[in-house]
Amino acid sequence: MNGAQSLIRTLVNAGVDVCFMNPGTSEMHFVSALDSVPQMRAVLGLFEGVVTGAADGYARMTGRPAATLLHLGPGMANGIANLHNARRAQTPLLNIVGEHATYHRQYDAPLHSDIEALAWTQSAWVRTSMRSVDVATDAAAAVAAALTPPGQIATLILPADTAWGAADGPAAPVMPPPAGRVEPERIVEIAAVLRSGEPAAILLSGQSLLAEGATFASRIGQATGARVMGNRLTARIERGAGRPEVERVPYPVDQAVAMLAGLKHLILVGAEAPVAFFAYPGKPSLLAPPDCRIHHLTLPHEDGIRALADLADDLDAPAEIDNRMQRSAPSLPTGSLTVEKIWAAVTALMPENAIVSDEAITAGRAAAAWTEGAPPHDWLHITGGSIGQGLPVATGAAVACPDRKVLAMQADGSAMYTLQSLWTQAREGLDVVTVLFNNRSYAILEGELRGVQAPEAGSKASQMISLANPDLDWVHLAKGMGVPATRAENADDFVTQLRRGIEAEGPVLIEVRIG
Amino acid sequence: MNGAQSLIRTLVNAGVDVCFMNPGTSEMHFVSALDSVPQMRAVLGLFEGVVTGAADGYARMTGRPAATLLHLGPGMANGIANLHNARRAQTPLLNIVGEHATYHRQYDAPLHSDIEALAWTQSAWVRTSMRSVDVATDAAAAVAAALTPPGQIATLILPADTAWGAADGPAAPVMPPPAGRVEPERIVEIAAVLRSGEPAAILLSGQSLLAEGATFASRIGQATGARVMGNRLTARIERGAGRPEVERVPYPVDQAVAMLAGLKHLILVGAEAPVAFFAYPGKPSLLAPPDCRIHHLTLPHEDGIRALADLADDLDAPAEIDNRMQRSAPSLPTGSLTVEKIWAAVTALMPENAIVSDEAITAGRAAAAWTEGAPPHDWLHITGGSIGQGLPVATGAAVACPDRKVLAMQADGSAMYTLQSLWTQAREGLDVVTVLFNNRSYAILEGELRGVQAPEAGSKASQMISLANPDLDWVHLAKGMGVPATRAENADDFVTQLRRGIEAEGPVLIEVRIG
Repeated sequence: MNGAQSLIRTLVNAGVDVCFMNPGTSEMHFVSALDSVPQMRAVLGLFEGVVTGAADGYARMTGRPAATLLHLGPGMANGIANLHNARRAQTPLLNIVGEHATYHRQYDAPLHSDIEALAWTQSAWVRTSMRSVDVATDAAAAVAAALTPPGQIATLILPADTAWGAADGPAAPVMPPPAGRVEPERIVEIAAVLRSGEPAAILLSGQSLLAEGATFASRIGQATGARVMGNRLTARIERGAGRPEVERVPYPVDQAVAMLAGLKHLILVGAEAPVAFFAYPGKPSLLAPPDCRIHHLTLPHEDGIRALADLADDLDAPAEIDNRMQRSAPSLPTGSLTVEKIWAAVTALMPENAIVSDEAITAGRAAAAWTEGAPPHDWLHITGGSIGQGLPVATGAAVACPDRKVLAMQADGSAMYTLQSLWTQAREGLDVVTVLFNNRSYAILEGELRGVQAPEAGSKASQMISLANPDLDWVHLAKGMGVPATRAENADDFVTQLRRGIEAEGPVLIEVRIG
Repeated sequence: MNGAQSLIRTLVNAGVDVCFMNPGTSEMHFVSALDSVPQMRAVLGLFEGVVTGAADGYARMTGRPAATLLHLGPGMANGIANLHNARRAQTPLLNIVGEHATYHRQYDAPLHSDIEALAWTQSAWVRTSMRSVDVATDAAAAVAAALTPPGQIATLILPADTAWGAADGPAAPVMPPPAGRVEPERIVEIAAVLRSGEPAAILLSGQSLLAEGATFASRIGQATGARVMGNRLTARIERGAGRPEVERVPYPVDQAVAMLAGLKHLILVGAEAPVAFFAYPGKPSLLAPPDCRIHHLTLPHEDGIRALADLADDLDAPAEIDNRMQRSAPSLPTGSLTVEKIWAAVTALMPENAIVSDEAITAGRAAAAWTEGAPPHDWLHITGGSIGQGLPVATGAAVACPDRKVLAMQADGSAMYTLQSLWTQAREGLDVVTVLFNNRSYAILEGELRGVQAPEAGSKASQMISLANPDLDWVHLAKGMGVPATRAENADDFVTQLRRGIEAEGPVLIEVRIG
């Protein structure tokens, strides 16, 4: 058994049995070893941003890390933008990065660069194996690092000779530390704050935003009058009919400040105090009112759901909640296309337990309101603001959940960053319906230009935030990667095509030209 | 005048008048300022790998740095793979990276990450401006850093408030240090080595590989019997009819070792001693024979052309050279398509002073031999081994040289990394003919798998180096980005389409399905 084989067996033993990859020479032994370990599924991406984003989407849906396989420093670098999003999503994720053989690194061969420096910008754990006999134990430690609460990125760098050298066999899984349990004193302290009667909100993040945590929070809210909120940019929300409704902090600073106005207490559950996404002249960075006290019910590595349960008990909160969302299918739209009609059609036709990958950007600003009547579903946000996440996350979520339909609600400018995702969807036959909002611009930047009080855009500036001249044709782009695609010219078209796409097996793309 | 305006005026004053960009919120003041400085040309790329690769191609052809404009850490990260290639090409290049406002960084907003850490992996100079009044002087220093011999990457990070805050005006250009001149003793020393009569070769790199340096080296070779060689992966070679022929060190280790066998002296002109691109079990990392002595005529920051001229004088080398390449147009191919026929047609039809961006990978292994009869042209290689360089470099070269035809000889797997380049070519109306070799695989990895002595690929492994299932359709992909495209089914088709493409104004893509 060589190092590569010991690695893959160790990963499989530790529950990591999917690897998204874009390999090169230094990873050939890993690739070659795949056939000797049938439990490991290998998924090829044609660009590393697809690979890391898919691993993020996979782990958001399964709670288990996927591995990535990347080719030296440039392969790592190409994956960083979506690792940034994964880091912000607190996603457990394990990068395997091939490196020059230990004895070859000294020669500064053309592909040499500082992989560890790149890896540390996003990883909580980085290690370079130096002997083939260490690869298995290093891999087991890496999986444990990825699973360390709340979930983090671990990067294992493997010089080629550690892959092809002899190994002793796989290593046993290493248990990650459990999520910390908060002291009873903290529960009592927060309960006292909530009993004060002063205006308060509970801000959920991470795992606590899933239905179980949101239900506890809603019970607490009913017992105390506290509002229940979620971070705007969060890995995953379980919402739709039967799930508790959670207010989200909006992106525009003025709206966020207005939403939080009057609060005297903000109770954070694994969250940070909300801040403005960007700085704008004359606007605050901190969104909560200056006299609002910030309390931590839990820190990110602590068990937020357990703490919410304890808090609900302490407050003797009612067992049932009154903020469950209701199914209410809008009537199917007709006539000319608008963004709102598209979301109405999606809400009406969405199958139960769909997964929505939301990178609609400006076309998705009001999506939470427009999809209020949807059946139960999961919603995956862009977490770190690095665009090009939506299609890869949809891809990984579809690998994770082959029995569920994935809806990728996708803006055009962002889609261009990682459009190669469509090819992986086609190869793997993934059930993803991509709704491509083509507004021929980085529309968000039109607002941002005003937001930062820049002088009005002249003709050169306007060209830099326009995607027109030439217009992108997403039907051609999708077909070029083997994904059936159509363009909806009106709402009736869209309804027909969306229905057909949801019924289809395998990926489809529907382009809608808006704005 | 604000910081952004002072920046752009400073750049223009220093001769940096093209900026490839993919901006976001933190760069809106830069974008807005573009219209107030007509001398600055702004070129939008829809992915940062396009932006940095285009800046590389531009500078290779002009010798002057282009600027890039990138959006925080993820924008920087997306550009790193092609910055890696630019670093290996010793390209002068200036990154401007937007950052959160100085007072906003402390809040760890979602897009925050360590931009300097990312930048240092590829840059020789990194600075974060902290006051709007400093931006102009920082920019002048950055340009000088980029132009410091032999050419390097400088990264200037601009917090948003330094762009919107008040500035005093542009800064005067800062002169970079000149290329160092070698001591006469070194010339004498190397001349003595060459006079020894022992087998010797001169290995050229960087600027010394352009026709002037290669001509001096060829004269020296004629005077002494030394062979003249170039690094395989080099930024730019001037070759074709009338230019001196230079042997290139091949990629396969066995071929490279065979080429260098018997050498007693290797004279490096701004080059490093040649090393294997990757390590392979049982094969050497160093390619020159163990008893070959390595001499440095010049280090990278020294003036190689001047040193070669001095050396030619010292050796009283003949004025004329006998290794000039000759124009010899092959007959136009007919019948079924092969890689060799494609190169024959290119050699026959190539206009004078064309620029070849070569990322043909396996389809380009013998391209140097097959294009020996071409008219004078420039050849741009992939320098750092990070794939996805070819289309962006072609794009930047076309911006640099609007009067010359650019031929992008491009492999399919690599093209997928930065296919967004085609859109920029369409928007800017660039005269680029892309010949897309579609072999439906990472064909190089089939050989590499054997090279590293990995067990033969089973079905899972084979899928990881195959681009089939589904096949990419490059006609669709190009049309999706506004580039006219055709597929050549046979050699006659290819000749017709290539002729038409060369005659056309603006970009075209010709897909050829091979092997």
